[in-house]
Amino acid sequence: MKDRKQLVVSAIKDGTVIDHIPAKALFKVIDILGLDHIEDQITFGTNLESKKLGKKGIMKLSGVFFKQEDLDRIALVAPDVKVNIIRDYEVVEKKVVEIPEIIKGLVKCVNPMCITNKEVVRTKFELLSRHPVSLKCHYCEKITDANNMVIISSR
Amino acid sequence: MKDRKQLVVSAIKDGTVIDHIPAKALFKVIDILGLDHIEDQITFGTNLESKKLGKKGIMKLSGVFFKQEDLDRIALVAPDVKVNIIRDYEVVEKKVVEIPEIIKGLVKCVNPMCITNKEVVRTKFELLSRHPVSLKCHYCEKITDANNMVIISSR
Repeated sequence: MKDRKQLVVSAIKDGTVIDHIPAKALFKVIDILGLDHIEDQITFGTNLESKKLGKKGIMKLSGVFFKQEDLDRIALVAPDVKVNIIRDYEVVEKKVVEIPEIIKGLVKCVNPMCITNKEVVRTKFELLSRHPVSLKCHYCEKITDANNMVIISSR
Repeated sequence: MKDRKQLVVSAIKDGTVIDHIPAKALFKVIDILGLDHIEDQITFGTNLESKKLGKKGIMKLSGVFFKQEDLDRIALVAPDVKVNIIRDYEVVEKKVVEIPEIIKGLVKCVNPMCITNKEVVRTKFELLSRHPVSLKCHYCEKITDANNMVIISSR
């Protein structure tokens, strides 16, 4: 058992812990996972010290278990997260996330003339590269990359 | 000292604790206070059991102290929050929040024809009533109330 001072947010009995979220991406991860609509107990910590990331965020979701495809959506903004599945206070599974090959409705197309920016059409991209992120629009074929990527809020 | 199991997010040495946030308003409070831009350590808990509110949220902001006028802005979505100012792990001040008489740039005017919805003009309202909330637009004089109030995200 860790010392309480180290444990910024308390342990959960069953659920999902997402750790090593870059601090700047925490609220984007919250958006992508739609956590503002979840009615289960959730705790977050952000701007915690991390040797690897500088500042990191962590979240613990009590009684919440995600599908791998939903978790993979956060890889766009937080590719190095560690996801632990907890049962009866123990880690029973460790997961990683990976940007999917096809990304639907999560990222805005960089091209202002793209049909997805002109009409109510859900965006769709093909993944060209993971490091750094590079996405090709299914409709206009323009490339959206890490530098100009805008996440579409679920709200 | 409370039992660790009750303390969902750990105590802070110095800073601000905002408690009794209605769970549904937590992310709006985060928006209004601009917490996604703060680089200090913040912890949140939401959907915690509360006898009074049903489900509540709490946040603890280490090293962060707000001006009363900034805190008052959250009264629109979380009028009954309890704000505790912490110094050296002790509560040194308890604050309440109150909706200001003039509200600038926080709420969308309900009138789609209002100039604030047609052009890039910051909204401005006069407070008519706190319980329930009723706001009169400075420009078009239409009434925006609790039922149709939309918070303008800071993001």
